[in-house]
Amino acid sequence: MRVGVLTGGGDCPGLNAVLRAIARKGERVFGDELVGFVDAWDGVMERRTTPLTIETMRGSLPRGGTVLGTRRGSPFDHPDGVDRVKTAMAELGLEALIVIGGNGSLSVACKLYNEHGIPVVGVPKTIDNDIEGTDVTFGFNTAVQIATDAIDRLHTTAESHDRVMVVEVMGRHSGWIATTAGIAGGATAVLIPEHPFDIDEVCERIIRRHNRGRFASIIVVAEGATPKEGTFDVGEREIDRFGHVRLGGIGNLLASEIGLRTGFETRPVLLGHVQRGGTPTAYDRVLSTRFGVAAIDAVHRGAFGTMVALHGAEIGETPLVDVIGRTRPVDPALYTDVAEIFFA
Amino acid sequence: MRVGVLTGGGDCPGLNAVLRAIARKGERVFGDELVGFVDAWDGVMERRTTPLTIETMRGSLPRGGTVLGTRRGSPFDHPDGVDRVKTAMAELGLEALIVIGGNGSLSVACKLYNEHGIPVVGVPKTIDNDIEGTDVTFGFNTAVQIATDAIDRLHTTAESHDRVMVVEVMGRHSGWIATTAGIAGGATAVLIPEHPFDIDEVCERIIRRHNRGRFASIIVVAEGATPKEGTFDVGEREIDRFGHVRLGGIGNLLASEIGLRTGFETRPVLLGHVQRGGTPTAYDRVLSTRFGVAAIDAVHRGAFGTMVALHGAEIGETPLVDVIGRTRPVDPALYTDVAEIFFA
Amino acid sequence: MRVGVLTGGGDCPGLNAVLRAIARKGERVFGDELVGFVDAWDGVMERRTTPLTIETMRGSLPRGGTVLGTRRGSPFDHPDGVDRVKTAMAELGLEALIVIGGNGSLSVACKLYNEHGIPVVGVPKTIDNDIEGTDVTFGFNTAVQIATDAIDRLHTTAESHDRVMVVEVMGRHSGWIATTAGIAGGATAVLIPEHPFDIDEVCERIIRRHNRGRFASIIVVAEGATPKEGTFDVGEREIDRFGHVRLGGIGNLLASEIGLRTGFETRPVLLGHVQRGGTPTAYDRVLSTRFGVAAIDAVHRGAFGTMVALHGAEIGETPLVDVIGRTRPVDPALYTDVAEIFFA
Amino acid sequence: MRVGVLTGGGDCPGLNAVLRAIARKGERVFGDELVGFVDAWDGVMERRTTPLTIETMRGSLPRGGTVLGTRRGSPFDHPDGVDRVKTAMAELGLEALIVIGGNGSLSVACKLYNEHGIPVVGVPKTIDNDIEGTDVTFGFNTAVQIATDAIDRLHTTAESHDRVMVVEVMGRHSGWIATTAGIAGGATAVLIPEHPFDIDEVCERIIRRHNRGRFASIIVVAEGATPKEGTFDVGEREIDRFGHVRLGGIGNLLASEIGLRTGFETRPVLLGHVQRGGTPTAYDRVLSTRFGVAAIDAVHRGAFGTMVALHGAEIGETPLVDVIGRTRPVDPALYTDVAEIFFA
Repeated sequence: MRVGVLTGGGDCPGLNAVLRAIARKGERVFGDELVGFVDAWDGVMERRTTPLTIETMRGSLPRGGTVLGTRRGSPFDHPDGVDRVKTAMAELGLEALIVIGGNGSLSVACKLYNEHGIPVVGVPKTIDNDIEGTDVTFGFNTAVQIATDAIDRLHTTAESHDRVMVVEVMGRHSGWIATTAGIAGGATAVLIPEHPFDIDEVCERIIRRHNRGRFASIIVVAEGATPKEGTFDVGEREIDRFGHVRLGGIGNLLASEIGLRTGFETRPVLLGHVQRGGTPTAYDRVLSTRFGVAAIDAVHRGAFGTMVALHGAEIGETPLVDVIGRTRPVDPALYTDVAEIFFA
Repeated sequence: MRVGVLTGGGDCPGLNAVLRAIARKGERVFGDELVGFVDAWDGVMERRTTPLTIETMRGSLPRGGTVLGTRRGSPFDHPDGVDRVKTAMAELGLEALIVIGGNGSLSVACKLYNEHGIPVVGVPKTIDNDIEGTDVTFGFNTAVQIATDAIDRLHTTAESHDRVMVVEVMGRHSGWIATTAGIAGGATAVLIPEHPFDIDEVCERIIRRHNRGRFASIIVVAEGATPKEGTFDVGEREIDRFGHVRLGGIGNLLASEIGLRTGFETRPVLLGHVQRGGTPTAYDRVLSTRFGVAAIDAVHRGAFGTMVALHGAEIGETPLVDVIGRTRPVDPALYTDVAEIFFA
Repeated sequence: MRVGVLTGGGDCPGLNAVLRAIARKGERVFGDELVGFVDAWDGVMERRTTPLTIETMRGSLPRGGTVLGTRRGSPFDHPDGVDRVKTAMAELGLEALIVIGGNGSLSVACKLYNEHGIPVVGVPKTIDNDIEGTDVTFGFNTAVQIATDAIDRLHTTAESHDRVMVVEVMGRHSGWIATTAGIAGGATAVLIPEHPFDIDEVCERIIRRHNRGRFASIIVVAEGATPKEGTFDVGEREIDRFGHVRLGGIGNLLASEIGLRTGFETRPVLLGHVQRGGTPTAYDRVLSTRFGVAAIDAVHRGAFGTMVALHGAEIGETPLVDVIGRTRPVDPALYTDVAEIFFA
Repeated sequence: MRVGVLTGGGDCPGLNAVLRAIARKGERVFGDELVGFVDAWDGVMERRTTPLTIETMRGSLPRGGTVLGTRRGSPFDHPDGVDRVKTAMAELGLEALIVIGGNGSLSVACKLYNEHGIPVVGVPKTIDNDIEGTDVTFGFNTAVQIATDAIDRLHTTAESHDRVMVVEVMGRHSGWIATTAGIAGGATAVLIPEHPFDIDEVCERIIRRHNRGRFASIIVVAEGATPKEGTFDVGEREIDRFGHVRLGGIGNLLASEIGLRTGFETRPVLLGHVQRGGTPTAYDRVLSTRFGVAAIDAVHRGAFGTMVALHGAEIGETPLVDVIGRTRPVDPALYTDVAEIFFA
């Protein structure tokens, strides 16, 4: 078979490992010819391709990033986008398309399958771990490890200076990274999009700790966390000169606010893009490899319109329609039952 | 409640995190008093204890090892061992005993519960990941990461010198570490206890690679892997002066044998004890924390004779009788379907 | 002898290793009694002390931070500050004071020695590496390694997305971290306080790269780097609600400006406090240990008013008067001859 | 100019960084054409070359190993070896040869220059740090960091089990790695080739620690360390079936011996080849880069018969004749004045 492959959305550790696995199993077991599209959907529409072979993927397992390049954007943004996808697939003789991407790319894939009959198989990718239908997404484990390593470092500074450190981690829509790294790093509090936070409560908790002689605190905040309405005004301070919300908005703001309210020295740390690049952890390399193998298997089983997934310890698949348009919130058992015991 | 806690068997990253979680939830939520036994069963029989509190466990989350100490040995090795355990519990006023350990310690715990009515709860611990009844044990993720980091390093040397590197990893009875690190590290072959290996086949694979211009190979071998009968003689060379099989036995032997048979420069690397010490990965810290919380919960629910466990993404429990006396072999889907595609 | 010790200024990896070395050599070889002052000069003035012994420092070698705590501030800020230092030393029976700190603490130490005859020995501490009189300060190697690890990770994201990444590293007055991590990380350009930068030149360089097909660029900027006068207006945007320059000021601004001028996707990353906490590298542990040994040796030789120092491969000492009031700029041979060849 | 380059001897982190620096400065500043010889001297004699350009070295900075391959062996092993080197250089139009290697390769280079007038420039390479004429060699810092990370991990196991761990590190002729990693890792004793050890003394030291309640000990031993004559018999046990001394010989033996004599649980750990592969530390990347720049500069200055070197904080050069045929022993100030205070 000739099969197209693309990587969409933001960078994520493990992308190359997925591509390598597809190439290895496809080429070696099925005798497939794999065609990589460069720069995601743009590459499909503009027919920019690169061969995806065992040879071209050699040495890529420990490398972060994606050799195919990635970009945001969708064929549905263009009046003739879908036609261009169809033509590309026809002219390149592709019998299937593997889409490795996040909520955005998977939604496009789902629509192309459901409304236009294009034979797609999805592979869920996000460091945020918030895609429905899979227990874990690749890249998440690496992001959590990086955030935890950073928190480990910040503890010693917080303790040496009797400081509050506010660590902003990724997670625009969900608190998976914040909660998991917060547990692993021994945080004082974790603020996540799923639960608007009460700034008074956060400050009280920090003050209670101080009164018990614990002068250092680490507050982990997901970039998408927001204060409860009416508690404090985020204002317009964090909008940059281009009208975008500044990365680090909530982290900076929260640090200022905590410092102001408690009188304790408080410093923000914004981990930012380091969470999504670089070599994947062993866990992510294995998960990515299993996802890649499962994706090319699914193509050969004709399981189109699905996404490969981790269900417990096993690799399975989930219909794309059950996945898209939603965000998987952090496991309440993790946040409430576990995290909350440890925080404060 | 007053609850005793011990850590048994070999060192394992995450032990302190389990202890800390027990102390945090026990003390903060249930108002328990936790009594740590020093040096595993010896500490129970000799009534050597240390208080296990939020305060004594402070700062221990990122630390490898166990503040309680650990030791092999069992009360069943002593004629009055069980009586001493019972007396210790009675005199210390303990209503339950949490046993954090591997197959050995859990078997003791099971027997103490079944035959002597001692209220125990188990927490499965082994870097080898081969305990029945749980999908993952804590410490395994860290061991795999350490082995993978080492394999990453060995690749560049293998390539610069056109060498075969034989990496011996832990796994006396199972190939979990070898298989997982082998996939994550991009090994050429993985040899595990579950499948006696054919030295001819291994050498042929390496030679085939050479013929394709791939002059560097990484062979990962679990310490418990053995050759198929009749294929080659392990001999008595690897017995040390005390009559013990030398750590590194199979790794050294295999490197010699491959070098001899293929004529290629071959070097052994024996990772040994570095795999079981030091700071746990974020994954293991979270799993350990969840296990610790679940263990003290199980005590309060009276779920004695069970072991906490990971089932899929959730924490559950498994009766100890279903766990002991067996070794969980590596998932065939991992070894056969995934690993074998990548090796060679 | 009874000797006081304090750690001043910002957190820095290796502080505990210095303290441990002082305690080991002092106690074991000289039979000294070491008195640790808590929270730097505040602890001296308020006579808050803690014993500094082999035992209290046990296990501290791999730990970041300082068990003594640290704080900014000086006895010269108080009308009776110097008297309180003298009284503290007299009443505690201290014959010498070891001051581990940066430019600020060393200036205080120098003045106490020169103007008030207090027998001090300095140990130069700054992750910024910009203290005169020593080739290297401890903490610098760790900070550079952390920044380099981050740059390694950012490369894959920059390449996958064809992006410019602007990485702000520490260095308010000097470009040591930026230059060294820039060389180690393979940056496109490094902007440092020693050389006001020309934004046009930076953008041209990035554009030239793009024209050669190199779509990813990493710009490393020290927090203290400033644009050449008249080139672009930093404005007042980066002043926070408390009137402080916001950490990340130049990094955020530069990313905005580059994006605006080149039209390329540009993202800021602000490494911040992770650069100054956590476990020291092996290099810093050894340098710290040698500095600690040398400091207590200097006390016993009566070499007061000096600072221990690295001169080439050897440990020596430098009079404090030759050190204070200056900033050691980055080695021109490093910046001009080496860095500039690699950048672009 | 057309300049040949080869990498000889064992793998060493930073080799690619040296090559990349030569290519960058050579191509960009001098307009040189660089010719890489594949597999060291074999490649010269067999005229196997590969172009060494900015482009071919792209992305190699963080990669361990050498893209040129490396091998032991010398033209002086072949009757017409020198002639073949001369012919190769003549026919390839090479005006100089940069030899990146250890004592072996540099001796060859020296002889080729002195006796045969071949214009060579050397770059000192060894993880062992024992080349005369330079304060530090690249690769050493990485090896020490890897060994220190391993020792950190072993501490927790040693402490949890009350064990003695014997860690064998590289260093056939010198104790640089052992001493430096021993200081950085907080070892109990360090045994090095420069000082034959007394097994009785080592055991007494461990016993004294036990008597003080310190039940865990880490003994670091360089692979080339030997017992004082007459103290104990190394015997012939550690010779493998091919008559080679087994890697790990002294480590295994010492662990057995200490266990036997003290009665304490003792375990060997043999770090082996992981110390010489994989990504270089930031320090080694910078040193390698500076060495590469200096080497191509030396070629253009006509400074043949020399080796680039680190003298203090500066890059200089040393005549090859002053370098070869010797081993630089570990700095006594490090071993005696520093290390010995910390051990025990």
